[in-house]
Amino acid sequence: MKFGVNYTPRVGWFHHWVDFDAAEVARDFDTIAELGVDHVRVFPLWPIFQPNATFVSPTALGHLETVIDLAAERDLQVAVDGLQGHLSSFDFLPAWLATWHRRNMFTDPDVIAATSMFLETLARVAGAHENVFALTVGNEVNQFSGGVHPDPFPATPTQTDAWLDATLGALRRGAPDLQIMHACYDASWYENTQPFTLEQVARRGDVTVTHSWVFNGTAQRFGPDAFETRAHARYLIEVARAFQTDPQRPIWAQELGAPRNVLPSSSIRPFIDETIGQLADAPDLTGITWWCSHDVSRALGEYPPLEYDLGLIDENGAIKDEGRWVAEAVAVARDTTPRTDRPVLELRYDELGGRSALAPEGSFFADYMELARTAGHPRIDLVRDPNSSVW
Amino acid sequence: MKFGVNYTPRVGWFHHWVDFDAAEVARDFDTIAELGVDHVRVFPLWPIFQPNATFVSPTALGHLETVIDLAAERDLQVAVDGLQGHLSSFDFLPAWLATWHRRNMFTDPDVIAATSMFLETLARVAGAHENVFALTVGNEVNQFSGGVHPDPFPATPTQTDAWLDATLGALRRGAPDLQIMHACYDASWYENTQPFTLEQVARRGDVTVTHSWVFNGTAQRFGPDAFETRAHARYLIEVARAFQTDPQRPIWAQELGAPRNVLPSSSIRPFIDETIGQLADAPDLTGITWWCSHDVSRALGEYPPLEYDLGLIDENGAIKDEGRWVAEAVAVARDTTPRTDRPVLELRYDELGGRSALAPEGSFFADYMELARTAGHPRIDLVRDPNSSVW
Repeated sequence: MKFGVNYTPRVGWFHHWVDFDAAEVARDFDTIAELGVDHVRVFPLWPIFQPNATFVSPTALGHLETVIDLAAERDLQVAVDGLQGHLSSFDFLPAWLATWHRRNMFTDPDVIAATSMFLETLARVAGAHENVFALTVGNEVNQFSGGVHPDPFPATPTQTDAWLDATLGALRRGAPDLQIMHACYDASWYENTQPFTLEQVARRGDVTVTHSWVFNGTAQRFGPDAFETRAHARYLIEVARAFQTDPQRPIWAQELGAPRNVLPSSSIRPFIDETIGQLADAPDLTGITWWCSHDVSRALGEYPPLEYDLGLIDENGAIKDEGRWVAEAVAVARDTTPRTDRPVLELRYDELGGRSALAPEGSFFADYMELARTAGHPRIDLVRDPNSSVW
Repeated sequence: MKFGVNYTPRVGWFHHWVDFDAAEVARDFDTIAELGVDHVRVFPLWPIFQPNATFVSPTALGHLETVIDLAAERDLQVAVDGLQGHLSSFDFLPAWLATWHRRNMFTDPDVIAATSMFLETLARVAGAHENVFALTVGNEVNQFSGGVHPDPFPATPTQTDAWLDATLGALRRGAPDLQIMHACYDASWYENTQPFTLEQVARRGDVTVTHSWVFNGTAQRFGPDAFETRAHARYLIEVARAFQTDPQRPIWAQELGAPRNVLPSSSIRPFIDETIGQLADAPDLTGITWWCSHDVSRALGEYPPLEYDLGLIDENGAIKDEGRWVAEAVAVARDTTPRTDRPVLELRYDELGGRSALAPEGSFFADYMELARTAGHPRIDLVRDPNSSVW
């Protein structure tokens, strides 16, 4: 099982792509390496990397290659995300998608062509480095497709499927030998109207990716110390697996963290221990990547308060208690042998009305957690009419 | 009278702030200097220079200082615009103003404070260079305030006035000895509902700025070779002067160009000659700054077609016919002594219903052009009830 961190540069956050300082990245990676991790996930900013539809910045690509090389020098593997897109409440969209040039990022053919050109270029450049192991279309691209977004690009599942064909295809062309994937936040698990579906999450690309954030209603509903809160990351793994068609397909807990807006200080360590412990008990989980490496500097303004404290390393570069706890929990997890005898729970998806039943307030969530608490995390057996209109 | 060009970097357009290459800027300025100009107007990209509300990029500021120094080495003065904002159909807005962080750029107190911090910093850094002579709040900031914009930040004239207090005040604090100003496109002259008013254009800051683009309906209505089309830039000067309270206040034709979407090849040279000739006849015009230095590279996509051909220098770095024509027309203009005996035309503003009468399709525009054609450009005598509700 891989263990890594989502890399949030200590100085300048992701704005470091412009104010790039290789020495700072090297220092960050030195500290990250002390956590015992084997990889980092890194995040280009889309408007910096592709400021014009036909132009990918050689300077930004060069900085990315420097980041990758600095990781290699510390035996760190690298996963690269393409379209950011959305990060910590901020949406970074290039000017060629905004106002006068606004077109639907998921459905406009010219936008899809331009996006694919960028992703193929990024994959080719990143994929030429031996320590790059994974490419993700973008961080939580479904942030832009609807739900609560104030200005979404609407799409149907058929359209998002075509968009995944194009964007995953672009990554594949650029880096034929790497693991490619896409990433959605859990609205694709829990909201019936999300155009990125759970099938797409579970079946498109080479790896299924989960992002577990217990501020999604779980911690609020059940409390910071509840079984449900600490079991949520594992639950997503089981739900994702239920929707897979290949039982051996890799699943990666690509993002999870301990958000202070719903977890008081006293709850952090048990949350970390139990969340990671339960993940480690999941058969064939291929990786855990904590969000995030470094706290956001308090000198940077206007983040939601919770975003400042998610780091395993503080804004001065010192490893936090959270960093030690996560590292210790992962060390324990690496010695864990997942249970093989476990209960089975049917998910009668169509009858339950689709994804809303899986949400923290849903009936399936409740049934799952009751069984998991008493008999261990079940394997979910998906029962589904292939002709159902429920998606 | 100053003569300059709006500097559009040959390689990478304004995206050069990230892919910065001082050697390319030096080459661009060498060619610009061959045009006989004395200044350039330069354009930071807002999201690059201020990616976070509390953070101004030292790297971007450093690039700006390099640009200013390279200009100085060629005896070029520099005018710096702050908020871009709007450039050639693209809107560059920082992520801290978009989607989840969307707030009204003209009225939100936190946004105004952050914007002012940036402008003061920019003014301080730029103003420390002896060859910087002018600071503009931003290029055509009224692009964002309403009118045809697809996603405007609505404001009232009282609110835009307060915004100008803040932004001009920030420039003043940063560079107390420089000319400071703001710039609006001609909707502030022609549209009754524009929240940036003609009074603000004519009276706020140290200099009145005009931007003359005959694709505003003038060339379409009157034809590419019409008197009106070639007189439009001068007309704006006279209208702006009419609204001034200080008769000695400087007026700067900060942006004008020869757009191919309304001017066929055969019309370009006479348009240039007569437009500049009529401007030179305006008493106390302090400067002409052509848009733009370099053609946009055809390798960059999705600009409106007209934007690719506005340069005086082509995308390979060769001076175009337009460059020679403009330089020659300016040389002639510098020897022109403006007429002092000229007709006077009353502008009974309130009775005419406000700004719409000044527009190319308006009655005052027609009256002005008739008189200008037959007796020379008149001085406009503004007749206005100070208590009028027409603005």
